[in-house]
Amino acid sequence: MRENQAPERRGRGRRPAAEVRSAVLGAAADQLFEGGLAEVTFEKVASRAGASKMTLYKWWATPGALALEAYSAAVQETLAFSDTGDLAQDLVLQLRAFVRLLTEERTGRVVAELIGAAQSDPDLSAELRRHYTRPRRQLAVDTLERARARGELRDEVDLEVVVDQLWGACYQRFLLPDQALTAGFADALVENLLRGIACPLPGRGGRC
Amino acid sequence: MRENQAPERRGRGRRPAAEVRSAVLGAAADQLFEGGLAEVTFEKVASRAGASKMTLYKWWATPGALALEAYSAAVQETLAFSDTGDLAQDLVLQLRAFVRLLTEERTGRVVAELIGAAQSDPDLSAELRRHYTRPRRQLAVDTLERARARGELRDEVDLEVVVDQLWGACYQRFLLPDQALTAGFADALVENLLRGIACPLPGRGGRC
Repeated sequence: MRENQAPERRGRGRRPAAEVRSAVLGAAADQLFEGGLAEVTFEKVASRAGASKMTLYKWWATPGALALEAYSAAVQETLAFSDTGDLAQDLVLQLRAFVRLLTEERTGRVVAELIGAAQSDPDLSAELRRHYTRPRRQLAVDTLERARARGELRDEVDLEVVVDQLWGACYQRFLLPDQALTAGFADALVENLLRGIACPLPGRGGRC
Repeated sequence: MRENQAPERRGRGRRPAAEVRSAVLGAAADQLFEGGLAEVTFEKVASRAGASKMTLYKWWATPGALALEAYSAAVQETLAFSDTGDLAQDLVLQLRAFVRLLTEERTGRVVAELIGAAQSDPDLSAELRRHYTRPRRQLAVDTLERARARGELRDEVDLEVVVDQLWGACYQRFLLPDQALTAGFADALVENLLRGIACPLPGRGGRC
């Protein structure tokens, strides 16, 4: 039925594809945050965005792929990295924002559902990696690379491991709850990893 | 029906409770590793353990609680910490064993299912914390405390944060797959965190 609107819309002037895509992603994010993954169906999202269901079928292989791309777009701004020229500050600002996002009920619930469902759904897991994990890891690695170019990080450190020791630590507190996820936790992650937790060797200064 | 066996068993001499409990946990672990969480029902586990279903109802509030305690008991030995007197070595040995457990199909599948299901099941989440997360974190903190008492760790470091920066890092690679979970990864986690990833300050030795 809804597809019948398409010729009419054409008659009134078709919206540019980028505009439709943005409207669809916004509608999918709204559905996701309001009702969870089950509410992100092509039918409901198309209706909410005033788009044709056929367009959604053309652009996304599954509702899960649409949900993941919508989630990723919705949190992009919140999770952006600053570039202050000081790595510790850039990391602390971003990790505090990430902790806020996980602990805010509306967003936290969706993150938990997406990651939880992906554990028994290989397609959703692949979309999670493609639309979320890989691009977000890359942004973090880019930030770390810039800091290394400024001489802030040791050359031999594998920056992908650093990503796991900062954001993975937050995910553990979030997915296996036990200790509080706080701004102070974000600060401690950065301090521990940059400085190291071992006692300084004798003669290197510092005390234990 | 199965409960009808109970008087008979009494006639033949009742097994001590500790023995029954151990048989039930073993049977529940077998069910879990063979068929996943759905196969851990009081009915099936009681039958497999040769125990009365009433006993299971008495000891465990839900099949999820039984599954979590069985899982925890099954991996206890594999995930035990050594106490060599050298923190780096104790951590590397344990983290390598943990990585092997996550990457072995039989166990990895169960961990993913338990954590995944807990994201939308508050009861299971509470049991996961009680039977797995809290006791395992405590063992790690105990190991770190001993190292601090030997003068290996800085006094002001929050050891609970250290737990997240080692095991949480593994969980991120496991639950949000992108980079490989390897023995070398386990080693790098320990090296990064003990030594720190920042360039040493001028005059402190080391180079960048």
